[in-house]
Amino acid sequence: MILPILCVKCKNQPAETSAVEGRLKLCPKCFIEYFERRVKESVQKFHMFTHEERVAVAVSGGKDSGALLRSLKRAFPNLDIVALHINLGINGYSEHCESKVRELVKEECVELNVFKLSEEGFTIDDFRKTLYKNEVCSPCGIVKRHILDRMALEVGAKVLATGHNLDDILSTLLHTFFSGDFVQLVRLKPVLMPQHPYQTKKVKPLIKMSEFEDYQYALYTEIPIRELNCPHSIGTKSREGKKILESLSKGNPNFKYQTLSLFLKKLIPMIEDKVKQPNLMSCIRCGFPSSTEVCAYCKRVEMVKRVGKRA
Amino acid sequence: MILPILCVKCKNQPAETSAVEGRLKLCPKCFIEYFERRVKESVQKFHMFTHEERVAVAVSGGKDSGALLRSLKRAFPNLDIVALHINLGINGYSEHCESKVRELVKEECVELNVFKLSEEGFTIDDFRKTLYKNEVCSPCGIVKRHILDRMALEVGAKVLATGHNLDDILSTLLHTFFSGDFVQLVRLKPVLMPQHPYQTKKVKPLIKMSEFEDYQYALYTEIPIRELNCPHSIGTKSREGKKILESLSKGNPNFKYQTLSLFLKKLIPMIEDKVKQPNLMSCIRCGFPSSTEVCAYCKRVEMVKRVGKRA
Repeated sequence: MILPILCVKCKNQPAETSAVEGRLKLCPKCFIEYFERRVKESVQKFHMFTHEERVAVAVSGGKDSGALLRSLKRAFPNLDIVALHINLGINGYSEHCESKVRELVKEECVELNVFKLSEEGFTIDDFRKTLYKNEVCSPCGIVKRHILDRMALEVGAKVLATGHNLDDILSTLLHTFFSGDFVQLVRLKPVLMPQHPYQTKKVKPLIKMSEFEDYQYALYTEIPIRELNCPHSIGTKSREGKKILESLSKGNPNFKYQTLSLFLKKLIPMIEDKVKQPNLMSCIRCGFPSSTEVCAYCKRVEMVKRVGKRA
Repeated sequence: MILPILCVKCKNQPAETSAVEGRLKLCPKCFIEYFERRVKESVQKFHMFTHEERVAVAVSGGKDSGALLRSLKRAFPNLDIVALHINLGINGYSEHCESKVRELVKEECVELNVFKLSEEGFTIDDFRKTLYKNEVCSPCGIVKRHILDRMALEVGAKVLATGHNLDDILSTLLHTFFSGDFVQLVRLKPVLMPQHPYQTKKVKPLIKMSEFEDYQYALYTEIPIRELNCPHSIGTKSREGKKILESLSKGNPNFKYQTLSLFLKKLIPMIEDKVKQPNLMSCIRCGFPSSTEVCAYCKRVEMVKRVGKRA
């Protein structure tokens, strides 16, 4: 008879999964506890928010933001949370995502605000008719950042939490580092303070959770998550950062944590005051923060509406 | 009939090799010219030395230092060059290396100084009896750095040139970066000014030449180079830096140059004044620079001689 490996925490149940890059063998119940404790620790360590603040949580219908909403709600049961969701108008995808978000907030008894992008007069699909062609991830990111800022402002939340996980953050760190973009690099901190009256404090409570851990947590706590992939994400280039990450993590389970700590504790503090962040002004059209007269969002709106008229 | 690809420079001879990570197809004659011009440009760009200075060149018998000596001699025919060689006392290897160095300096009509490590009362082989066992690369590096400083001082050279190539420098850059050793990182600049009266200015004229280019230059100009590998280098761990370098250079011929430039032009200047270099004092035994009372070299000598006595 082969005996099962027991959970290293409760030493009672069989270990079914592993955390911290495979170093911690846990049973589902202890994994859930570990996950929620670690999220709570990150929030407290980086002073992401206080118990009195209203916290907006961006939810997309995916595993990361689902894990974020559920773990925050469980780690801080009395916190005033409001979920924000953007229906991007992606055919055969966005309605499905919205339905999953509606299921989740119902389970969590959390207030939900949905923004239908079509009400702005365009959808993400429409960007395929612009010079972006089939690579609409870039304008989609710009749109989401702007709309989330606007929604947070409207619901009176001073803090906006997003589901960026350890792998996301590290691959972007390495990518921006190797492309020499130190301005963006500095902006990857777990907490970004507002620089403009229309901006919220941006926080990343899942900064220490890997993509795999988010997935496991979503699975074990049965979070309703989308079963489809975004049709626009097919064939997008995997970035250099992800490649380095994969090649270096092999044989070194500590690599991801070491590299995160290298950037956050050593490199960014050293270069922060040398990196000149662009002067923020207010966009002359929408009033939201911008480094140019017209902000990136308003430019994209103009672009997508122009082709819409021509069609 | 298949026509050969012609050299992009002279457009006359068939291209036999490529430079700059495969982007420049050249005939042997034009490759040699390219190599020597690029070395000259690096020397001038980084102000490595002036025509009036006596320059010591460390030669090991290998392709890199051989390419360094020959290209410097040809790029600066009137320069006062003195070659320095350490006979490390490695059985079945060091005598062979020394003989190749003697051939080369004869061809180049360059003054040669040879230091026999056995005259210090030990050899690199003896370190196998210490706690280093079969991993003697670390004490060997310490010994070479100290002896070269001493030899340069004795021959009255204020500048010491070494054959570190682009691949060496980048893999060390990435390794020291990811290990968070910013003190060592800053020391990887192409020119290191002396911080102590017994130190020389250290320069790396081959900083922009890849390992492959050094090898090609040695081959085309028929530099006498060793045909043996150091017996101690077998099985030494390939470093993380080399792994990143390989995985990232694939499909991006510019990667090595971009990364070198990222570190030298952007990162190091930003962090240089924040990195506290250790206070240099003089070793109480040998008088050479040290961050501790007894320098790393004198400690290794003591260690190797102690086991010698016991044996």
